[in-house]
Amino acid sequence: MNDKIIITIAREYGSGGREIGKQLAENLNIPFYDKELITRAAEENGIDPDLFENADEKPSNPFWTSLAFNIGTFGSHSPTMNDLPMNDRLFLLQSKTIHKIAQEGSCVIVGRCGDYILENEPNAVHLFIHANSEDKLKRVIHSYGIPAEGAQEFMKKTDRRRAAYYDYYVGEKWGQMEHYDLSINSSTLGIKSTVDLILEFIKIKKSLK
Amino acid sequence: MNDKIIITIAREYGSGGREIGKQLAENLNIPFYDKELITRAAEENGIDPDLFENADEKPSNPFWTSLAFNIGTFGSHSPTMNDLPMNDRLFLLQSKTIHKIAQEGSCVIVGRCGDYILENEPNAVHLFIHANSEDKLKRVIHSYGIPAEGAQEFMKKTDRRRAAYYDYYVGEKWGQMEHYDLSINSSTLGIKSTVDLILEFIKIKKSLK
Repeated sequence: MNDKIIITIAREYGSGGREIGKQLAENLNIPFYDKELITRAAEENGIDPDLFENADEKPSNPFWTSLAFNIGTFGSHSPTMNDLPMNDRLFLLQSKTIHKIAQEGSCVIVGRCGDYILENEPNAVHLFIHANSEDKLKRVIHSYGIPAEGAQEFMKKTDRRRAAYYDYYVGEKWGQMEHYDLSINSSTLGIKSTVDLILEFIKIKKSLK
Repeated sequence: MNDKIIITIAREYGSGGREIGKQLAENLNIPFYDKELITRAAEENGIDPDLFENADEKPSNPFWTSLAFNIGTFGSHSPTMNDLPMNDRLFLLQSKTIHKIAQEGSCVIVGRCGDYILENEPNAVHLFIHANSEDKLKRVIHSYGIPAEGAQEFMKKTDRRRAAYYDYYVGEKWGQMEHYDLSINSSTLGIKSTVDLILEFIKIKKSLK
């Protein structure tokens, strides 16, 4: 019986999505990829991890990208991946790493358009974690150590950036339930019990194979 | 221990949301309200059930509503509920019935902006059921008996009407995950196992009280 399970988690900033992913990975005893993805994609492609870190979940500037293609920055040769803006190249290399990781076995992958990149992976389930604003704000201040002043704005900006990244590379609106098997408000049950619910979901999913 | 639980279910047409609600109600041995809401709201308000049926999950025409208010259809008296367009009056009466039902005890309520009307009800959980297009189409044709020709269009129209009803009375976009504790793609586990997952969710929720 093929028990492989790939869990992708998209998450609002402050919703505890990363923590939920970590606990899921520990519970299921499978690898967990969040920032770890960057390190691995950098290693595999011989690229400075700082470059990846800097481009992480940020879209290219679509103006410059389309301008470069339209005015023929590429001279007389057809454009190749090396001609793409750095963020787009990193996205493609990162996608390759995500596919490779998914081939290796069960895992939890946080963010980075995992739901889109692995939309045709039959063993994948795609989750979105959101939460009530006041809970997110509390978590951002007390757990992530963001100064209370400006925390609300920082939270909004981070989600706007994630949305722009998704919109740019997927071509769809971020945070729409249709892209996910399960979208959960982590405020309803709290982190620990949300993990329990997802474990039950995985158990049922596996039993149906 | 207060074990009361109100489950509201919003659903895409063809997602099996009604069937899921019915099975939840049977499993939990609590009343189920879908069309039953209309009958009850009609009875309680001495209004012809056909009028309710006709207005069911349809918004007023916002043009006529605002026109009536702006050009002073109401003459010299202040507008009262009796001056509202019929669909708006029926929405208000139905909302009153939904509040009353929620006061009486545990129940399952399908559609009719239940999540919004009961957003401050502490014992309520709000669910949204969606599904893959091909599964919805199959269900609409084979279980609801809609002729295959035109089924896709009928499905889209029904959801557009539900969205317009929600947008009109709630003032927010329909089908956004932020309004729900749990948004579930019923294609992932199928109807029966989706019911099992929700029962587990309810069990965890009750255990936290």
